Amino acid sequence: RSSDRPSSDGPLNIINASTIAGYVDLAETVICMHGGTSDSYNLIHRGTRVRKMHSSRRDAFRTISDVPLGIIDANQQVTFLKDDVKRRGDMADMWVDTKIDPKVAMLYFYPGMDQDMLHSVIDNDYHGVIFISTGLGHVNTDMYPALERAQEEEIPICIVVEPLWGFTNLRVYETGRDMLARGIFEGANMLPCAAYAKMIWTLGHTRDVKEVEKIMTTNIAGEITDRELNKGYMIMQGVEPGLDDMLKLVDENPREHRWGI
Amino acid sequence: RSSDRPSSDGPLNIINASTIAGYVDLAETVICMHGGTSDSYNLIHRGTRVRKMHSSRRDAFRTISDVPLGIIDANQQVTFLKDDVKRRGDMADMWVDTKIDPKVAMLYFYPGMDQDMLHSVIDNDYHGVIFISTGLGHVNTDMYPALERAQEEEIPICIVVEPLWGFTNLRVYETGRDMLARGIFEGANMLPCAAYAKMIWTLGHTRDVKEVEKIMTTNIAGEITDRELNKGYMIMQGVEPGLDDMLKLVDENPREHRWGI
Repeated sequence: RSSDRPSSDGPLNIINASTIAGYVDLAETVICMHGGTSDSYNLIHRGTRVRKMHSSRRDAFRTISDVPLGIIDANQQVTFLKDDVKRRGDMADMWVDTKIDPKVAMLYFYPGMDQDMLHSVIDNDYHGVIFISTGLGHVNTDMYPALERAQEEEIPICIVVEPLWGFTNLRVYETGRDMLARGIFEGANMLPCAAYAKMIWTLGHTRDVKEVEKIMTTNIAGEITDRELNKGYMIMQGVEPGLDDMLKLVDENPREHRWGI
Repeated sequence: RSSDRPSSDGPLNIINASTIAGYVDLAETVICMHGGTSDSYNLIHRGTRVRKMHSSRRDAFRTISDVPLGIIDANQQVTFLKDDVKRRGDMADMWVDTKIDPKVAMLYFYPGMDQDMLHSVIDNDYHGVIFISTGLGHVNTDMYPALERAQEEEIPICIVVEPLWGFTNLRVYETGRDMLARGIFEGANMLPCAAYAKMIWTLGHTRDVKEVEKIMTTNIAGEITDRELNKGYMIMQGVEPGLDDMLKLVDENPREHRWGI
């Protein structure tokens, strides 16, 4: 257990994760972690869409822009919440392709950011950039000369969005169209961490910028979704009227939202 | 309206925001934006705790780790949800202090990040750094030489957490204690953007690293909260059993969660 708390979430996490790895008809890279703050159930999150959303809560991991793949309760009973789960096949159909190029930089855009941040990345011989950008995926016009240099030097730059939920869209505002003209491409609704992992893998296979863009913008393992479920956005943060009453329908203890048992 | 949609959220936002600015007993910097996807109500978010959490939804802005200050409905009726709202005083008690130093870099940590990213920031003569770090606020050990250089050159580095919800805590794991020994200080539960704005203001007033740390770790305008409300963490993402039924208690149309009218 961590030194900052009196009990451990370890046992349920490892029991449920082991059950899924050993017995469940599921062939995806997933994270299995507490769904609530007590030991009542875990959520099964698709690896490409999960993110740590709280620094210390047991239910810190959340599937972004979608519902989790499934739930596994304290009795190791699994309920899938989605239909498109990859099922097990033959070992013969599996291969491992580990060629990567780790020279990828992640840059977090902020208003007032100077282009020297991107120039330094280029100077330091990075081969690709994930730019975490504001709104629909924007950076400021001061960044343009550095973007143009990256384009000239054939360093692919993939835009993802700081809000985490939702898609990039560089066609709505003029700045976005300027960015497209400078060779930037949109990372759809990939999470920053998924886009980074995908870029180091992609650059391990090709340095051709058009090919990199093609791979990066094609869904491979659920990292890009066709659409966003209405329920995939966080709803309810405790501000709705009657939320306490509603929560009591699920559980009389309003601090805890148990599932199943 | 934006070119990507047939209607506009502008009128309700400007009517409600103008009402608050002109008539409501509230003296804080706030953001007033749609609380749901239709024109039924806006939320009043404290400026230091609000973040855009969706790239395109009307209800994109959310108060993090707390509930919003209040709600204003389509009839401009305001209900405050919190007690610690700053009320109006005398103009004579107000002053504006605009001294800032914009030479602050934001760095987003990722596993595999090379220390050259931080060295470049130091080389480019930045005076302070906001480091958006994993978990409770961690970077990897490969970053240590650059952290030590920043310490020697008296460049303050404030750690905030990538998960957005929750506090930094560098006392739980060894890496955190190593970071403290290298002069890093914790940004409590400040949002990255709030920490950045606070750092450029702070460096406009002092370059003394101990003084910078003292100001940065003291709550000034609600950017650091004493504790996190249980309701301040996102609960419910559509995965709980019976959520549809519960939502119908509020509104028969489950796509819309109206407040008030």
